[in-house]
Amino acid sequence: MPEATDDRLHVIVIGGGFAGVGATKRLARHEHVRVTLVDRNNYHQFQPLLYQVATSQIAPSHVGFSLRKLFRNHANVEVKLAEVAAVDPRTRTVTTADGAEYQGDAVVIAAGAVPNFFHTPGAAEHAYPLYSLADAERLRSRVIAVFEEADRDPALMARGVLNFVVVGGGPTGVETAGALSDLIRETMVIEYQDVPVAKAQIHIVDLGAALLTPFSTTAHRYVAKVLTRMGVEIHLGTAVTEVGPGHVTLGDGTTILTRCVVWGGGNMAPPLAGEVGATQGRGGRIEVLPDLNLEGLPGVYAIGDVANIPGPDGTLPQLGSVAMQSGVAAADNILADAAGRPRAPFRYRDKGIMAMIGRGAAIAAGPHRRELRGLPAFAAWLGVHALLLTGVRNRAQTFLDWGWDYFARSRGPQLLDRSDAAAIDWEDDATATLGAAPDEAPVG
Amino acid sequence: MPEATDDRLHVIVIGGGFAGVGATKRLARHEHVRVTLVDRNNYHQFQPLLYQVATSQIAPSHVGFSLRKLFRNHANVEVKLAEVAAVDPRTRTVTTADGAEYQGDAVVIAAGAVPNFFHTPGAAEHAYPLYSLADAERLRSRVIAVFEEADRDPALMARGVLNFVVVGGGPTGVETAGALSDLIRETMVIEYQDVPVAKAQIHIVDLGAALLTPFSTTAHRYVAKVLTRMGVEIHLGTAVTEVGPGHVTLGDGTTILTRCVVWGGGNMAPPLAGEVGATQGRGGRIEVLPDLNLEGLPGVYAIGDVANIPGPDGTLPQLGSVAMQSGVAAADNILADAAGRPRAPFRYRDKGIMAMIGRGAAIAAGPHRRELRGLPAFAAWLGVHALLLTGVRNRAQTFLDWGWDYFARSRGPQLLDRSDAAAIDWEDDATATLGAAPDEAPVG
Repeated sequence: MPEATDDRLHVIVIGGGFAGVGATKRLARHEHVRVTLVDRNNYHQFQPLLYQVATSQIAPSHVGFSLRKLFRNHANVEVKLAEVAAVDPRTRTVTTADGAEYQGDAVVIAAGAVPNFFHTPGAAEHAYPLYSLADAERLRSRVIAVFEEADRDPALMARGVLNFVVVGGGPTGVETAGALSDLIRETMVIEYQDVPVAKAQIHIVDLGAALLTPFSTTAHRYVAKVLTRMGVEIHLGTAVTEVGPGHVTLGDGTTILTRCVVWGGGNMAPPLAGEVGATQGRGGRIEVLPDLNLEGLPGVYAIGDVANIPGPDGTLPQLGSVAMQSGVAAADNILADAAGRPRAPFRYRDKGIMAMIGRGAAIAAGPHRRELRGLPAFAAWLGVHALLLTGVRNRAQTFLDWGWDYFARSRGPQLLDRSDAAAIDWEDDATATLGAAPDEAPVG
Repeated sequence: MPEATDDRLHVIVIGGGFAGVGATKRLARHEHVRVTLVDRNNYHQFQPLLYQVATSQIAPSHVGFSLRKLFRNHANVEVKLAEVAAVDPRTRTVTTADGAEYQGDAVVIAAGAVPNFFHTPGAAEHAYPLYSLADAERLRSRVIAVFEEADRDPALMARGVLNFVVVGGGPTGVETAGALSDLIRETMVIEYQDVPVAKAQIHIVDLGAALLTPFSTTAHRYVAKVLTRMGVEIHLGTAVTEVGPGHVTLGDGTTILTRCVVWGGGNMAPPLAGEVGATQGRGGRIEVLPDLNLEGLPGVYAIGDVANIPGPDGTLPQLGSVAMQSGVAAADNILADAAGRPRAPFRYRDKGIMAMIGRGAAIAAGPHRRELRGLPAFAAWLGVHALLLTGVRNRAQTFLDWGWDYFARSRGPQLLDRSDAAAIDWEDDATATLGAAPDEAPVG
């Protein structure tokens, strides 16, 4: 057992997302450190592009990267495929669901998030979240399946089979609504000639007064204009109060018939966050000190989406760049601890925020909220994401592979998983029952 | 309903593999013809490369091609996603599992094949066939899963967790054994540093006296030499008599402990072949006349793997090139029927056969059985498959995408599906029971 004879600093990292990979990469540079990286999947998922998988723009293999491959040149990184069952923060021991135990000098909790359905009735059962690669593949199959249903049974048009409801007006929601519109107008209209594809309708629903609230008022107008031009109907200032197998009900009483509800309505910490004996804040996230340590638990860090990280204006948002940078900062503080140096508070270097609305239409805001819109923002979006991708795969491959797929509009991976055949049958049964339900009124 | 007013020749093609796509492409050229192509998947699967998906060399999206996309520029081709439930050969009516009926002037049965387990006990339950894209993805996850099992529990080495048994010494078996060896020696040995990967052992089993029997004796020696050098143990002249969850038993009494059995042991016709009232021959395949028509059933054709097609030296083998050419020939005979011209007997133009043994080692035999071995055969193999792929996607994309993945040895898509987590647990339970079983003796 290496544990017994090894005098290297042993760090256990829980989660191989942006935060965990950021921390592991930083630690792996040091020969006196060894890292055990535990994830329930054997791959890192590149979350900013999940919506492109869901809309058949790119293949799943373009956003899922083997963690073992990522660290194959780092002999001091061990990747373990396991579900973490418990963390003992006093002894810094991580126990996996299959009974393995890892005891370290430091533990970094980078366990990410799960969808937050805000107790909306039916949402957990019927809505499709978009946080993991598996989510994206499920949604992709669902989107194709509703077109196949419409092709098979024209009567389903009256039941809203080609209505799509996107819940949440943040980047995930806006990007998904835009990409769905691109998919329908560029591809489905050609490929489903027996289906009245022009009658497909995308809705986006948000409780707030605008889409993409972190951007400026000018940006809000731009996003609304572009999405409207793309045929997306925008419902603002209203919540989704219920999700059924064949409909969605909004707070203003509107019922929208639909068989495809995308949940971009927010995330919360996974159950593991409640198991470490730390204070939990908004969204159940672990409250961390400015140095990313848990109060009273030396050597235990929480980073990325699982943590509420203090920033200059309150808690930092759940962003990939915050996750990545907090991973690096936690690694540096662990190294400082070991060297007897003082820990530094985490300072987030704001790289700006961006969202893709549709092909050629994007929006980007720099650190001081200087905004780009349209083609310049689109170009910036592509550049930034291509660069981000090079963190997990080599640059030439990224451009060849991903760039090609994206620009060629080839929509290669429009594959309907066989597993969704079951979903089709299930939906059919559900609607057979629902057809008579009193709440299945038409839109509006 | 177009059926009522349309006076075009209506052909129903069952199955979107090489045969069905071959027939549909040929028919689609003619404006006076319309085709309804029915497949249970919404994609064509490029079968010759399935073993590369199974061994994480290329991504599933590189061998699965949307049928709707393939025919998007042909307004006279309708693609229908459905399971065919029945064919009435007298009225040429095809009924799908969801109740749709298509009545045509001709019906082309190109329903492919299913694995033939030859009533081997346990094979259907525990072996992994490699005929469909779903098969390939399941096998890919299984291969990764056994390495994860070995990583998690070193004691499993004694239970043969890294033994792989490939059943069948045809191209599928040889290509899979070779690619597994490449995967293990090039990739797994680096990525699983805690696992004694050098102890992994691949076995290939065939009842015949040689691997790749259709090739020459010189070729047989070459294949045996290359595979042996790659660490594959060859068992000839012996059948697999039983497959269990943790072992395989051979006809000579040998038991090999293994959790990963690849079934390349042959195919047979799917149940549909028995539903059309035609004579069934070897493998349950539909016996066709030399013109690919079913005897006594004018306008009903069977092509590809589902058919026993007469050739100069008996029945033609189940090959992609036979499937594709028989599709074209059936299409031409349907057009001849409609024009009142005589049908022509199908003449297979032998393009030769080839098999990839490992990177840089292949074997190819031309029409007159002139053979290439080694690098020239490898180059020929790449050229032929790149060309074949351009039948379903554009050429530039093929070379960029597939070529890159293959040459860069990037092994991007080493993704373990979450669904295989269940398989891991199941195998564990199975072995817990099996550990005490008397037949779990070591190899040899």
